[in-house]
Order: sequence, then structure tokens, then C-alpha cells
Amino acid sequence: MTILLTDAVIATMQGGYGLIAPGAVAIHQGRIAWVGPQDAIPTEFQGFPRHPCGGRLLTPGLIDCHSHAIWAGTRAGEFEARLNGASYEQIARAGGGILSTVAATRAATEDDLVAAALPRLDQMIAGGATTIEVKSGYGLTVEDELKMLRAARALPRHRPVQVVTTHLAAHATPPEYRGRNAAYIADVALPSLRAARAEGLVDQVDAFCEGIAFSTTDLAPLFAEAQALGLPVKLHAEQLTDQHGAAFAAAHGALSCDHVEYVGPDGVAAMAAAGTVAVLLPGAFYTLHETQIPPVAAFRSAGVAMAVATDLNPGTSPMASLPLAMNMACTLFRLTPEEALLGATVHAARALGLSDRGQIVAGQRADLCLWDASHPAELSYRIGGPKLATRIFGGRLDV
Amino acid sequence: MTILLTDAVIATMQGGYGLIAPGAVAIHQGRIAWVGPQDAIPTEFQGFPRHPCGGRLLTPGLIDCHSHAIWAGTRAGEFEARLNGASYEQIARAGGGILSTVAATRAATEDDLVAAALPRLDQMIAGGATTIEVKSGYGLTVEDELKMLRAARALPRHRPVQVVTTHLAAHATPPEYRGRNAAYIADVALPSLRAARAEGLVDQVDAFCEGIAFSTTDLAPLFAEAQALGLPVKLHAEQLTDQHGAAFAAAHGALSCDHVEYVGPDGVAAMAAAGTVAVLLPGAFYTLHETQIPPVAAFRSAGVAMAVATDLNPGTSPMASLPLAMNMACTLFRLTPEEALLGATVHAARALGLSDRGQIVAGQRADLCLWDASHPAELSYRIGGPKLATRIFGGRLDV
Ligand SMILES: [Zn+2]
Ligand SMILES: [Zn+2]
Repeated sequence: MTILLTDAVIATMQGGYGLIAPGAVAIHQGRIAWVGPQDAIPTEFQGFPRHPCGGRLLTPGLIDCHSHAIWAGTRAGEFEARLNGASYEQIARAGGGILSTVAATRAATEDDLVAAALPRLDQMIAGGATTIEVKSGYGLTVEDELKMLRAARALPRHRPVQVVTTHLAAHATPPEYRGRNAAYIADVALPSLRAARAEGLVDQVDAFCEGIAFSTTDLAPLFAEAQALGLPVKLHAEQLTDQHGAAFAAAHGALSCDHVEYVGPDGVAAMAAAGTVAVLLPGAFYTLHETQIPPVAAFRSAGVAMAVATDLNPGTSPMASLPLAMNMACTLFRLTPEEALLGATVHAARALGLSDRGQIVAGQRADLCLWDASHPAELSYRIGGPKLATRIFGGRLDV
Repeated sequence: MTILLTDAVIATMQGGYGLIAPGAVAIHQGRIAWVGPQDAIPTEFQGFPRHPCGGRLLTPGLIDCHSHAIWAGTRAGEFEARLNGASYEQIARAGGGILSTVAATRAATEDDLVAAALPRLDQMIAGGATTIEVKSGYGLTVEDELKMLRAARALPRHRPVQVVTTHLAAHATPPEYRGRNAAYIADVALPSLRAARAEGLVDQVDAFCEGIAFSTTDLAPLFAEAQALGLPVKLHAEQLTDQHGAAFAAAHGALSCDHVEYVGPDGVAAMAAAGTVAVLLPGAFYTLHETQIPPVAAFRSAGVAMAVATDLNPGTSPMASLPLAMNMACTLFRLTPEEALLGATVHAARALGLSDRGQIVAGQRADLCLWDASHPAELSYRIGGPKLATRIFGGRLDV
């Protein structure tokens, strides 16, 4: 299958936007065969079937590098109760909060989980995502964590999207292990990780490092096991307080540290030294009415790459649109639109350890988005982004 | 044309959500003929062709009662320049700000304006809007204001949506009238209003009352003329400071006062006495990093109805999705999801002086939205809303 996309404003994302306008892209067997100016198309691609882009903006397919897209149940009632005056404590006593999602997810079958995730996936795809990361973390038993990972692995059979799976058993301590984090890691997190690895269900390992969740001491055996199994790690770090999780993760060569609103200079330096990406998640910041923004200036001057993701989850970020996350990153965190787009393409790929996507260059996967826009700044400027005109996934036009 | 929608969770929006579940709606000749419980469908509607809703949420078609959906040019470059460190003053000196939109809009033809508006309209419709208000206010000459209103009137010929048009020549003082507000009102606002009325282009009259725009003294002749022409008025009031615009507008029987972050007790009381709706616009609040939220508790206790709208415009709220505005109204202004949905249905209809839509009751227009959701709180809970499964416009299935 071959296509020649013509007359596009191409944001290659090489060295920033890397604009080529008007430009053309030749696609062959699911890969980008050539990209360049419209008036320099090599003879060998001149005969490819043409798809004229009408001067529209062409970007790499977007990459959502942090999502919890698989869960059962809904937290809409809890959102409503809170706005009707219920306290977090009242909601927790009524069975709300993350444990309500855990209970519903435990009660669901793998097929239930897939079915519930598909409308979310449709919204992610409508927002331009072609690769998404999906975490476990609402099962919190060996079997239920595996069930979530199996559901995540099944998603590409139902929708044109690539999925990177992440083991996140160390997301919360379930009621039956309350106050016994070490036992939970030993009994559930480690065995579920080994089993997931054996079954080929897991691409990377994540954890939630926070006063209300796990300490770096709790997590040391888990990250050691991940390394022994040859799996890269990443961490929910310094979202609400500085636990020095970023330095801990960076010492394990983490692909990314995520949230990082409260990371200090030591953490930034450690991330820079390790090449760890800072994944910014403004949806949760917005929903939780947080006020401390991540140290963007420090990341810039230390050369820490910043990614932007939806953090799609039922509690703190029920948001499926990457362009909306990009607008929030600009409006709330003061990223530039160019940084936001790098954050949802090249840097997001890096946060997932992927080098075959995120830019429009010869040899990469032909995952591309054509937008009803004429400049890449429009993606972040419009709250929710412009309309996706066409998506190309693995070389095929599919929206 | 007749349809019987069955097996829906119906938010009738009578007295709050007004839930009927499972429920059915009979549609005949573009109107709602009957609504009620699934097991009580009257014999006369039993034979209608059925459209099973699969337990999905059915709401009235959403009503966006405040938009500036018609403009030319883009302000994405300005958004980007600001995030790269340019000051508002530098941007203004470089020809940016609202006057850049005015220049581009003056240079555009009516057809250009329609073509530029259609992708925005598509996004509004994808967010569930069936009736939208569209203002002039980027022409600021008699001819260019009329051109904008003609473009607004033309929209329903291109997309399945109803449009209410609003004359907003008193939006900003153009450069050629700088410092001469009274002359601008006399030379441009009044003649364009009379001409628009004569041509049947205008349904209501609006103005921007603010220190940086027009005072109530400036606006008195305009509102008097509106009343003489039999046109209802409304006002952009107390967005950035308290100009006592709400009391002024209420004294003219205003349908709505919009923004109203800084309205004081006198303004709230005047609005309550006049039955004026408070239109909340969280998109602009979010984009401008405002900190003073509208006096929601005072509106509640005074019985002032609150509407929620996108304020879609290129400068301060480039946002086309009503469900996203509803989420922001809940998250930023602490409205309940029920208030937010009333605000985008019944109260939005009231803000436009319309009594034939905004609820699912017999006799109203059959403008309805079927959502991939099972409870109306989901509309506000999800940042950007659930996916619109089907839209019914004037009795026809169209999405
Ligand atoms: Zn997360
Ligand atoms: Zn406005």
C-alpha cells in the first residue's frame, strides 16, 4: 500500500516544529518513505496514488504516554456529590474514591473492561492519538492486575491504535493490605509483575510514589525486579509533595517521571543526568485545583524533555483529548505550543522508549494526523484542538 | 416524519434533571408529541418507527447562548507569541489583539466568513449544540456589522442548527473612533442596528460594558433604540470590574447579563427582579487566568437562573464544546452538574428568549441529544463530555 500526501503544511517535529510548507509525504508499506518540499518529490514517488491535503496541517500521530484508560464503573456520581457539598471523607465512607473503581474493576470481566474502554479509545483517536499507553492499577490482586493488562493488550484488535502496557500494581494499597505496603508489594506487586512478564503482557513498570501511596523504600524491590526482568521503569512522582521519587526513579534509569509538580532541584538534576522525560499532566492539576505548577523553567535549563499526556482516569482526569491536554499545558503551565506538540509527539515517544514514531521522517511508522488547521500553534491554541480531518495509521487512511 | 425513541435514560430538565428511566419519546412533525415511561407508551404512538436507545442518556439539544462564532483570521500566532514572552502591549503594537480580528473580518466577504465559521459549527454540533447564538462585533462599521449578521443568518442553510443573531456593534471602539465612544455609537452602532432590523438580520442587541469598552452612559441611546425597535437586550457585564452594567441592563429588561464575575449585590438584586439570566462563561475565565469567580451562591439565593455557554471567540475563549464549558463551570465555578445542564438547556433558552426548546416535554421542538453515557452527571464530569451517539434536529436523526 502506497500513498503520496501532497500540499500539506508539515510539522515534522525535527528540531522544533520543523515546518515544510507546502510539503509532501510518501508512504510505503506502513512507513514514511520520504518527506520534503512539494516541488522536490523524487521521481520514484511521483506515481504513488495522491491524497491532496489542501494546505492543511500534517503532524505525526499523537502519542498519549500516560493513561489509565481501562476501568469499570463511573465516578460521575462522586463528582456530583462533591459539588453538592459532600466532603472527600464522606465520599470515602460511602465507598467512593479510587476504591470504588477497584471494586468495580475487580467485579468486571476482561471483556467488560474492553467494552468499557472502547468509547474512551474512540475519543482518544478523535483527538489524534495513534499510540497510547495504558496502565493497570485498579485490580490490586494478581489476577485482577493481569486481567487489566490482558484487556489493554486486546485493545488494538478492536481499534486502529497501538498500545503500550504498563504494570501499575503499586498504584494504591487495597483495603486488605492497609498499613502493610511491604506485604502488598511482596504478595501482589511482585508476583503479578512476574506473571505479566511471563505472559508477555507488560512493556514497562510504574508506581505511585506519594505520602498517601508508596515510599521509595516500599518500591525498591519492585524496581529491582523490573530491572531483573529487563523492563524499563517510570514513576508517578512528586505530584502532591516532594518524596524524592524523581531521583530514585532516575537512579533506575527511568523513562519518565510523571506529574512532578513538586520536584526539587535534586530531582531535576537527576532526571537530566539520566535522560528521564518529565511527563506533565495538566488535567489532574486542573481537576484537583492544584496551585503549584511543575518547574518548567528548570526543566528547560537542565535540558529535561517535557511530554504532555491526558492522564485519562476516572478520578482526577476524566479527559481523553490530547489537544485539550496541550491547551491546558500552555494555559496552566505556560508551555509554548511548540513544546506542547513536541510533548505529545517526540517526547511522548521517548517517555515510552519508542524511537520509531513521533516525527515525520523517512523510516518512521506512517502514523499521521491531518488537521483542519494551517499552523501547528492552532493545536494548542484552540481549547480542545481543531477538528481532525484525516488520520493515517500504519500507512492507512482511517478517519 | 415520526419516530419513537425507546429505552432511554431521559433527562427532561423539568424541575432539575427530571429523569425518566427507562423512558420513551414520540416525535411527530418536528415536535415532541409525547414523553413518558417506557411501559406507558400510548397506543397512538405504539406504531411509530422505533429507534432503540440502548439505555443511553437522552437530553434536550444543547443551546449555546453566547458565541462569537463568526470571525476571520486566526489569533494562534498571538497565543504563541504571548507564551514565548511577548507582552500584551508588544502584541497590540504588532497589530494583534481584537483589532487584528477586526481587520481580517473587514477584509473578508460574507462567503469567506461563512466558510471560516463552518468547521467551528461542526465542532459545536459534535458537542451537542442544536441552537446557537452568534454575535456581530468584529466589523465595527455599518456595512461590516451587517455582513457579519448576514453570514450568521446564512449558517442554517449549511448545517443543521438554529441560529439566534445578536447585534454587537458596541463590542469595541475601532481605531478611527478612539476616545469618541458617543460618536461611534451615533455613527455606527445605531445606524447598523436600524439597518439590521430593517433587513430582518437581528434577534437581539448586546454590548460590552467595561472600563476598556463602553460605559452605561455610552450605551443608553443604543438600548433605547433597541427597545424602540422591539428588540430584547443583553449585556457583557462586570467581567473585569463592577461597572453596574447588570443593574443598567436589568432596568431595560435584559434577557441576560453575561460573564458577571464582578457583579455586586445591587446587580444581583436587579437581575432577580427583572428575571435576567446570568450567563457564565468559564472559557474566558480560564484563558485569562482570572481569579474572581461569579457570585454563584448569591445567584442561587436570589433565584437568578444561571446559563453556561462557550463564549466561542478567537481571543479569550477559542472553545466550541458546550460539555467542556459545563465541566469548567463545575470545576472552576463550583456549579453542580445539574445546574450546568440546566444552564446549557432551559436557562440558555431563557437567555435567548426562547420558550419552545430546552426541555423534553410535549409541544417543544424535537431537538435532542443521545449520549454515550447513562447519567446526566456524566456530561459535566467528563472533561469535554462523553461522545454524542446521535443527535435529533427538528425531528430528524442527523449525527
Ligand atoms: Zn497516572
Ligand atoms: Zn462575549
